[in-house]
Amino acid sequence: MHEMLAVRWHGRRDLRLEDIPEPQVKPGFIKIKVKACGICGTDLNEYLNGPIFIPTERPHPLTGRTAPVTIGHEFAGEVVEIGEGVKGFEVGDRVAIFPVIHCGECYFCRRGMENLCVNFGVTGLSEDGGFAEYALVRPYQAYKIPESVSFEEAALVEPLSVGVRAVKKAGLLPGDSVVIIGAGPIGLSVLLVARASGAGKVIVVEPSRVRRKKALELGADIAIDPSGRSTEEVVDEIVGETELGADVSFECVGLNETFKTAVESIRKGGRAVILGVFKCLTSFNAKGLVVGEKSIVGSVSHSADDFCRGISLIASGRVDVGPMITSRVGLEEIIERGFEELAKNREGHVKILAVGK
Amino acid sequence: MHEMLAVRWHGRRDLRLEDIPEPQVKPGFIKIKVKACGICGTDLNEYLNGPIFIPTERPHPLTGRTAPVTIGHEFAGEVVEIGEGVKGFEVGDRVAIFPVIHCGECYFCRRGMENLCVNFGVTGLSEDGGFAEYALVRPYQAYKIPESVSFEEAALVEPLSVGVRAVKKAGLLPGDSVVIIGAGPIGLSVLLVARASGAGKVIVVEPSRVRRKKALELGADIAIDPSGRSTEEVVDEIVGETELGADVSFECVGLNETFKTAVESIRKGGRAVILGVFKCLTSFNAKGLVVGEKSIVGSVSHSADDFCRGISLIASGRVDVGPMITSRVGLEEIIERGFEELAKNREGHVKILAVGK
Repeated sequence: MHEMLAVRWHGRRDLRLEDIPEPQVKPGFIKIKVKACGICGTDLNEYLNGPIFIPTERPHPLTGRTAPVTIGHEFAGEVVEIGEGVKGFEVGDRVAIFPVIHCGECYFCRRGMENLCVNFGVTGLSEDGGFAEYALVRPYQAYKIPESVSFEEAALVEPLSVGVRAVKKAGLLPGDSVVIIGAGPIGLSVLLVARASGAGKVIVVEPSRVRRKKALELGADIAIDPSGRSTEEVVDEIVGETELGADVSFECVGLNETFKTAVESIRKGGRAVILGVFKCLTSFNAKGLVVGEKSIVGSVSHSADDFCRGISLIASGRVDVGPMITSRVGLEEIIERGFEELAKNREGHVKILAVGK
Repeated sequence: MHEMLAVRWHGRRDLRLEDIPEPQVKPGFIKIKVKACGICGTDLNEYLNGPIFIPTERPHPLTGRTAPVTIGHEFAGEVVEIGEGVKGFEVGDRVAIFPVIHCGECYFCRRGMENLCVNFGVTGLSEDGGFAEYALVRPYQAYKIPESVSFEEAALVEPLSVGVRAVKKAGLLPGDSVVIIGAGPIGLSVLLVARASGAGKVIVVEPSRVRRKKALELGADIAIDPSGRSTEEVVDEIVGETELGADVSFECVGLNETFKTAVESIRKGGRAVILGVFKCLTSFNAKGLVVGEKSIVGSVSHSADDFCRGISLIASGRVDVGPMITSRVGLEEIIERGFEELAKNREGHVKILAVGK
């Protein structure tokens, strides 16, 4: 049996580069040779603070797996083997992987809301994923990409689709003024999609100099540094730049103060889309919500539709995700030069990719 | 000069039944003989806790008025005189009054969001209103009603339109399960409109026995008494009745616990519309909002479109607002048997009307 390299999550602060048996294709699955895989904030969080999504005691209901698992859910590659019963793929197909696993049977799946599936799982968290030479995926997870889309770009479809979903949830209209709070990979994805969707003035709020610069490079009109300033001052600056407040805001951080910025910096009738990972209760001014007829909308993960739109935006040239990549390393170096590098210097990066041979 | 009776707000706990000069019609206005006028929660709040909306020091920017003013903004009547330059009305027209006054020039008015006008005013708060024998209104505030709609029903178009707006804000779909928290006039208006709009199961949460009974009479399937129970227990009961939580909730109270009930009792992907009058900061679980992709939407007042829909619902017989009226009194008795009665026994009533001769 052939062996392959894989980055395995064994526990908090315990990622290991291991030789494990190459996966054998199973009926109903296809085997992918991974060409590029990105580190997501979720992956870093599992590394530094996990287990969060990775199952450790109770096996995941759809995959039956517990840790250790091969991490990595932002990936793309080439079809190398096709399992029994699978139609519509050929060896050599270039594909981007939609990492969501859903049951197809629950209340939400039956209503076309697979991202809310009660048994929701993710390839690369709930089972073996993309930081490996090979991976197995279900046919519904593989989307063919045209020659014009590189594997590196295809690995970025996943985070870009999170931005697609958020912009859809915002009901963004042409000319809408936009505030994006937090310019990490998700905030920048929102920025790219908002720009491609006809946003008017786009303001980014981000303490990291590197990320502010990246935001301006990717199309933001203004990048505000909130460091050492009160929330009220930041809100006042945004309101001043947008007449009476922005039409739409996107919260991509997950703190009480950034939530407040998102809700206070929109105009009456405006919409705040919340994507951040919150750890405690948030307090806010509900009276302002009511008398200002504001909307606060949660957005999480993405659907197959969002993923397809992500591919389309890249393939059509409407969005260039390339500048989001701040480092490329080999798989054998991704723990040290990827995960450890982000742990030490997260704000100096946007996206680090492991690229295959 | 003729005199007429009017109920004047002079200050907190200081409503006076006075003889004042009958208003003379002005260019651009029409004069209405008031036939029915209802007491709104806002009116009661001005009486018990005001001034809130009523201008006392700075004149209202559109009306130039300060207290004392004739209170009452839920009214209907007959056109008796037509000011210079007004077209489209005839003496004898039966009209329901849309009490909103807007400037037509601000950011929001220019974009068709007159209910968010920065100079927003209300006839009956920002200038003389409907608890009088006669009132002056602008042509855009008067909507003709068909013979099939009584003046009493027409006086209820205003609170009903608040329900129309909330149901529109919810994006209510046929079959949606609905939770309404608070069954005062606004909660019951939401109930009537939701029922007429194809709602599935409708659950009302209300501590008053009289109002629960009224809610069941007006089409609620279940009326929950939250008295002496924890928010968690109430939420669990709602979730149990709606499989995984309601599709939509309407918060018509304005307390921390009812806000929590509204957000926690909806399913993932559900929408909570907030109408309550909040007095302090609200704390809630933003993580649940994000991972559950919930929406929280403020709804305030109504637009001209909402008002027209309110008339249409009553005229077509799709909504019967009659049962909301729990008492009818003459104008000369409305302070004692209306305002004072509500101050003492608010939960024993829904809507009290002053009816004209």
